[in-house]
Amino acid sequence: MSSRESRAAIRVSSAGPADPLLVEDLVAANRILAKEGVLDGWGHVSVRHDRDPGRFLLSRSLAPEMVSAEDIIEFDLDNVPVDDRGRDLYSERFIHGEIYKVRPDVKAICHTHAPPVIPFGVTTIPLRPMYHRAAFIAAGVPIFEIRDAAGMTDMLIRDPQLGAALAKSISDKPAVLMRGHGATVVAPSLPRLVGRSIFLALNATLQAQALIMTQGGVINYLDPEEARLIEAREGYGLGRAWKAWKRKALQLP
Amino acid sequence: MSSRESRAAIRVSSAGPADPLLVEDLVAANRILAKEGVLDGWGHVSVRHDRDPGRFLLSRSLAPEMVSAEDIIEFDLDNVPVDDRGRDLYSERFIHGEIYKVRPDVKAICHTHAPPVIPFGVTTIPLRPMYHRAAFIAAGVPIFEIRDAAGMTDMLIRDPQLGAALAKSISDKPAVLMRGHGATVVAPSLPRLVGRSIFLALNATLQAQALIMTQGGVINYLDPEEARLIEAREGYGLGRAWKAWKRKALQLP
Amino acid sequence: MSSRESRAAIRVSSAGPADPLLVEDLVAANRILAKEGVLDGWGHVSVRHDRDPGRFLLSRSLAPEMVSAEDIIEFDLDNVPVDDRGRDLYSERFIHGEIYKVRPDVKAICHTHAPPVIPFGVTTIPLRPMYHRAAFIAAGVPIFEIRDAAGMTDMLIRDPQLGAALAKSISDKPAVLMRGHGATVVAPSLPRLVGRSIFLALNATLQAQALIMTQGGVINYLDPEEARLIEAREGYGLGRAWKAWKRKALQLP
Amino acid sequence: MSSRESRAAIRVSSAGPADPLLVEDLVAANRILAKEGVLDGWGHVSVRHDRDPGRFLLSRSLAPEMVSAEDIIEFDLDNVPVDDRGRDLYSERFIHGEIYKVRPDVKAICHTHAPPVIPFGVTTIPLRPMYHRAAFIAAGVPIFEIRDAAGMTDMLIRDPQLGAALAKSISDKPAVLMRGHGATVVAPSLPRLVGRSIFLALNATLQAQALIMTQGGVINYLDPEEARLIEAREGYGLGRAWKAWKRKALQLP
Repeated sequence: MSSRESRAAIRVSSAGPADPLLVEDLVAANRILAKEGVLDGWGHVSVRHDRDPGRFLLSRSLAPEMVSAEDIIEFDLDNVPVDDRGRDLYSERFIHGEIYKVRPDVKAICHTHAPPVIPFGVTTIPLRPMYHRAAFIAAGVPIFEIRDAAGMTDMLIRDPQLGAALAKSISDKPAVLMRGHGATVVAPSLPRLVGRSIFLALNATLQAQALIMTQGGVINYLDPEEARLIEAREGYGLGRAWKAWKRKALQLP
Repeated sequence: MSSRESRAAIRVSSAGPADPLLVEDLVAANRILAKEGVLDGWGHVSVRHDRDPGRFLLSRSLAPEMVSAEDIIEFDLDNVPVDDRGRDLYSERFIHGEIYKVRPDVKAICHTHAPPVIPFGVTTIPLRPMYHRAAFIAAGVPIFEIRDAAGMTDMLIRDPQLGAALAKSISDKPAVLMRGHGATVVAPSLPRLVGRSIFLALNATLQAQALIMTQGGVINYLDPEEARLIEAREGYGLGRAWKAWKRKALQLP
Repeated sequence: MSSRESRAAIRVSSAGPADPLLVEDLVAANRILAKEGVLDGWGHVSVRHDRDPGRFLLSRSLAPEMVSAEDIIEFDLDNVPVDDRGRDLYSERFIHGEIYKVRPDVKAICHTHAPPVIPFGVTTIPLRPMYHRAAFIAAGVPIFEIRDAAGMTDMLIRDPQLGAALAKSISDKPAVLMRGHGATVVAPSLPRLVGRSIFLALNATLQAQALIMTQGGVINYLDPEEARLIEAREGYGLGRAWKAWKRKALQLP
Repeated sequence: MSSRESRAAIRVSSAGPADPLLVEDLVAANRILAKEGVLDGWGHVSVRHDRDPGRFLLSRSLAPEMVSAEDIIEFDLDNVPVDDRGRDLYSERFIHGEIYKVRPDVKAICHTHAPPVIPFGVTTIPLRPMYHRAAFIAAGVPIFEIRDAAGMTDMLIRDPQLGAALAKSISDKPAVLMRGHGATVVAPSLPRLVGRSIFLALNATLQAQALIMTQGGVINYLDPEEARLIEAREGYGLGRAWKAWKRKALQLP
């Protein structure tokens, strides 16, 4: 479905203006992840609307590093914009709505092509948590094989059916690798989404290093119980990094 | 052939002034690829003239990061400048003219020494497409062995014969690795050329990582049909990254 | 123990104002190590008080790159702040006090999650000194296994008992790797601490490279006697790098 | 020999003021190599005096990125400063004088701890030229084993005898690796020295990559004759990169 077709007929009402701080954090998340090399010119980040769990916020089609508050558009969970004012939309917006539909715990979603995760998407080596910052990986990071869902494609999640297939693949996990494409990460808040997106990529780099160094020998990953205890308290302390990331990304004083 | 010799005798007429936007994009392409680490002090980028397929535009001999509109010179496909005003020319300009001669589909060419592609030029491991951004690699990336064309040389494509040999080696492909030297990338437009040049290098890095991690095990590359479907729509969406790359490279607001 | 609980009851007297130059160096150390990629948003650096070996200086809970002189708080060796003015403290401040207690030779401590050291903390390959800048590694870098000290945890050194266990693990060594977490580095001065923290990470990168290149073959590490002779004179010469690091970190003219 | 001792007694006359452009290029070389990551806080660069082959120019003891024209000091080939005005000198200045003594072809010298060369100094894998920019490596890059010259040391070239041993080890080659320490590179000019220093490190990175990818399989290095033909013309073309490097390093318009 191309960016402007067959949208005119549908009318979606707004949940009202989102909290300006939430919008500011969404802009910050876009720019932080671009600065950290997690998002290239094509990835995107969304957040669930604070007034209505049936709406989410996502930029118009724009490189993440260029996103500002005025680029943010409200969508319903069928990925229909409330008012796009004729602007181009991300062709893969279906990733967002379809996951929000089936994952009420998810408040923020990032779709990324971060280079270090690409090799793990095309081999059979599972991602495992190397250290506390990547504890969420212990829950398991499945690989989405788009061929199983739709045969030969251009790899993009460009319709609701593919979005639903991806949502099914991520199941109750914090992230899913997309074979030959990238990954999608979910979280209960924007700061945790940014943390997970950064550490998914960093853990991939470090795990690859350990695998190569040991030539298949023993690696002492986090124990599932350690990971559970870390995740149970992760909110605390993340604010410290979030403040520094946001300051740099928004060039605050 | 050194930069100023035996050129005075030949007179080439101009196709007229090129579209200023095309020149701006050519300048941007030079600077983007320098910023992204694809071009060092020596690579170069050209574009076919918009008024005459028998002419191309290329900077005078200058590091790509320093190229401005006033440095751009018009050449005919025999690599003769219309009016070089006595300025030094790239000694490897023959890469450009000779490929434009035999590849009417090609509108832009980049010659690069991007580090990640060097190891693939000196081993027998073929480049394969790791993910959708590098789908063009599925068409095959041959290796140009200059020894086959000319025996022992200083590795440079410094005359029309070597340029023609390189053009024969690239055949109908999107890129060719040059053993012990670098690579040459071609595309139907400057934005796609920039994308291909960046993702040729990034795919090399990621493929090397996957090869090492799996120690020769199975890697799930893009299927040729997936690659074909991606390439068939690649134009769409590339503009988003191009806008961001260009803004940074030209320091636009 | 969370950041503000059960502290009100204890009163600790100040050793008096610290040397402003020491505070400036502590601020510089925080920012240098952030710039060099050794500290992310969570690591921290402390220094022993110049007027009283029973006190140390550490920032309030803040990303190292944002630390300024006004953020520095005085603590006693039981990790009790003299006057925190209600500000949040690092939950892992116990690393610092417990090591200062048992290591009178230590004047400065850094807790880091530097990526290159993570793989060495989860494999059985010991860090060895690749070159003169990392000679201190010859003394041995143990691995702290928090499971031995406390079973399943959230990996953080969040109480005096865990701090003491870490202090026991580092013993008389210059650094300790923390499995699934990071490392803690100690030194007789802030400049040497900064040097050791940077070169612990760089040596890990280079040793991993050598291990992989040789596939387990012979690596010619520094001889223990060479390391001893280097360490005996290391103070000399370090000032040159310290001056450059500090100038960049504090944006001095 | 520490930096200020036993120097007062010797008097060396000046060869007169050096060409200001040569001094500017020496300052630029220091800053370029710092920017490129080839020099850390401790490496150094020298150039032979343009008026007298028996004199060379080297900064006072200072991190290369901070070197300005006023820091440059004239030395004789016994490494005695003409007039150091009481400033600290590099303790390893003996590298420079001793090589200039026995290598009249050498006009510029760089001592570096560039990380990628360190692994090659401690393994038995010889550096080989991966591509045209590193053709000089075909001449061979020996490894200096300081234990052979002086047994157990602190690894530094801190006296004329060690300098002479290093000069003997480099023989007629363009560079020498120093086991557990770094490398020393020589060249007939500052621009070529800068190029060699950068590409020695880059070639090490790329050769390591190729070695690992092929797991000891065949790598198609430059042929010695190719390398000879490249070196015979290298001066041409280098100016293009030199101009760009210098502009950035000196922040020229």
